[in-house]
Amino acid sequence: MAKADQIIGIIGAGQLARMMIEAASPLDLHIRLLAASAKDGAARIWPDVTVGSPDDVDTVARFARTCDVITFDHELVPEPVLQRLEMDGCRLAPSADTLRIAQNKQRQRELFTKAGLPQPQHAICQSVESALSAGRAFGYPIMVKAAQGGYDGRGVWRCETAANLRSVAEECLSRGIVPIVEEQVLIDRELAILVARTPGGAQAIYPLVETIQIDGICRQINLSRSNYRGDRTQAADLARTVADLVGLTGVMALELFESGNHLLINEIATRPHNSGHYSIEGIATSQFEQHLRAVLDLPLGSTKLRANAAVTVNILGGSDGSDPRERLGQAIGLADVAVHLYGKEARPGRKLGHVTVTGPALKRCADRAWQAVSILTGDPRPEETF
Amino acid sequence: MAKADQIIGIIGAGQLARMMIEAASPLDLHIRLLAASAKDGAARIWPDVTVGSPDDVDTVARFARTCDVITFDHELVPEPVLQRLEMDGCRLAPSADTLRIAQNKQRQRELFTKAGLPQPQHAICQSVESALSAGRAFGYPIMVKAAQGGYDGRGVWRCETAANLRSVAEECLSRGIVPIVEEQVLIDRELAILVARTPGGAQAIYPLVETIQIDGICRQINLSRSNYRGDRTQAADLARTVADLVGLTGVMALELFESGNHLLINEIATRPHNSGHYSIEGIATSQFEQHLRAVLDLPLGSTKLRANAAVTVNILGGSDGSDPRERLGQAIGLADVAVHLYGKEARPGRKLGHVTVTGPALKRCADRAWQAVSILTGDPRPEETF
Repeated sequence: MAKADQIIGIIGAGQLARMMIEAASPLDLHIRLLAASAKDGAARIWPDVTVGSPDDVDTVARFARTCDVITFDHELVPEPVLQRLEMDGCRLAPSADTLRIAQNKQRQRELFTKAGLPQPQHAICQSVESALSAGRAFGYPIMVKAAQGGYDGRGVWRCETAANLRSVAEECLSRGIVPIVEEQVLIDRELAILVARTPGGAQAIYPLVETIQIDGICRQINLSRSNYRGDRTQAADLARTVADLVGLTGVMALELFESGNHLLINEIATRPHNSGHYSIEGIATSQFEQHLRAVLDLPLGSTKLRANAAVTVNILGGSDGSDPRERLGQAIGLADVAVHLYGKEARPGRKLGHVTVTGPALKRCADRAWQAVSILTGDPRPEETF
Repeated sequence: MAKADQIIGIIGAGQLARMMIEAASPLDLHIRLLAASAKDGAARIWPDVTVGSPDDVDTVARFARTCDVITFDHELVPEPVLQRLEMDGCRLAPSADTLRIAQNKQRQRELFTKAGLPQPQHAICQSVESALSAGRAFGYPIMVKAAQGGYDGRGVWRCETAANLRSVAEECLSRGIVPIVEEQVLIDRELAILVARTPGGAQAIYPLVETIQIDGICRQINLSRSNYRGDRTQAADLARTVADLVGLTGVMALELFESGNHLLINEIATRPHNSGHYSIEGIATSQFEQHLRAVLDLPLGSTKLRANAAVTVNILGGSDGSDPRERLGQAIGLADVAVHLYGKEARPGRKLGHVTVTGPALKRCADRAWQAVSILTGDPRPEETF
């Protein structure tokens, strides 16, 4: 069977699975979806859907038997599911071991420390005492991150005082979560870089982008050719090194802090990532197509820029609860605005889609993207993004 | 209900419907498909499919009642179906009257003659005698075109002699088909231009492209910014005029002959068209998204060029009967090659997909596109395309 004929099973049917499907269709790749609900974003746009819990061992095992290779739209796959898929000899892309690293900040920190990669100062704390001792060493305010289970700002706390740190550490430990205590880095910018890797180790690097987070949630991604220093940068080298370290198959986002002249690794996500949505319009091969190519062990595509600048702004459900579909016509009336809606029910603050604008200059792209998003959500552009 | 929330029913589920769906998904537009078979190209990639004959009056009428607006992936909709949909008060985009023109070369010729638009010399012949008299007037060789039912080179005959013309005209008339006898134009180039039009008459014009046909089948489409003279050209004016004349809603392709310094109208297709596939990668708004915008009466999108050159080459089933999917990996290993497969069973000569290459220079795009297509089909590049 030709590689392109293999059935790719996707565990989970959120927006990442949806955009993988949108990338698969022109190439006529075979996707099979395991969706918790037929109303999930990806399940709404694809015929080959199995409805069942992606966290249930038997459901996933049964589904996987009908596929040639399995990939994921999230990395929070429960350990019993991973073990069963491994035991059954399923081809996983990324592998179970890669996912075990991606879903655990402790494993990431330990691995990167061993490899001598730059990170914030941190302490992996098995006791309240060690947390407090890290507090004394790094000074306050200080960050605490849950080793497992956090995303979009959840599982991260900022502690102003030792008393504060004590209570957070106690709370974590009592729930069986290892707290990682980290120095609060003076962050100049948050950055991200995508890398794709095939099972044989071929890699493709995407350009470095800036991400703007508000309350731990990514709101805007900036790509600018004038900031783009080619593939031979420290960020690209780090991404390549980490992709090899974790034995990546597929696409991975490496999230970085820029502090002074230093880059420090924040964390990784071993799947297409919000910080890479710009690639659909901004790059010759989108992260979603690239992920599928890597999963199938096909040749990776070009990551050439298609514009001088690209800005992605997330569409978070408007505070009045209205649905962005109601004002879609107005938004796409703006030139150069590419709207992506994920087929989710509107709720205030929920990620419902994103807008990407490409063009000659970053500021104009950002202004236009926010103009579209403000139309769609009814909410004003946040000050932090000016 | 917001316009973007309306259900668009598509009659027919071939590659045009498939690429409409691919354009609809990011905008979360609601598509409902009437497919002759669940194995049709578009039905394979979409969950909301009714299987039934698009030529059966009751089937179509039942389907149409579940939709807010109806569009088509072909214009050969039988008259009884059109009448029933009109009688039922369905919103059709394009309208039944527009389709009646698009599916009938006689109506087109008469309409364009009345409007004083440039066309080849022709005679609409109700008898063998009038055909022969046109033969004497225009000289041999001469072209005969069936008023209705032809596409991809079918329904078109080249007659070298009066005897030849007589037998073709007799054959047509005996089958109830009106033969249109046309002078054989000395064609320098075959050209095509897309125009989109909303129900309110707003228009968007695409750039003029050259099409290369072999044996009446479109093989290659060339777009070059250096040949692009902007919107205010004769071709664009013709397209605008014809779109208004036929009361277009949606996208239309106007096919033209360039002969000396003259442009002559060949024919129209009132739907997304093979000559516009380049727009997926080459233009800010693809013809498929533009068609859906027009059908929903949403604002039309920008038709700005995204590259200096774009070449589309059709993937016709290879003479050895092999499936292009088998060599997909090799083809997408070439940089800048966008492969679109339509999910059809491979048969020699059948349109199975297309490849578009964008880049700075036309020749390089064409060479690269043919390189990819030769890999996919196993057949060499035809001499006519060099």
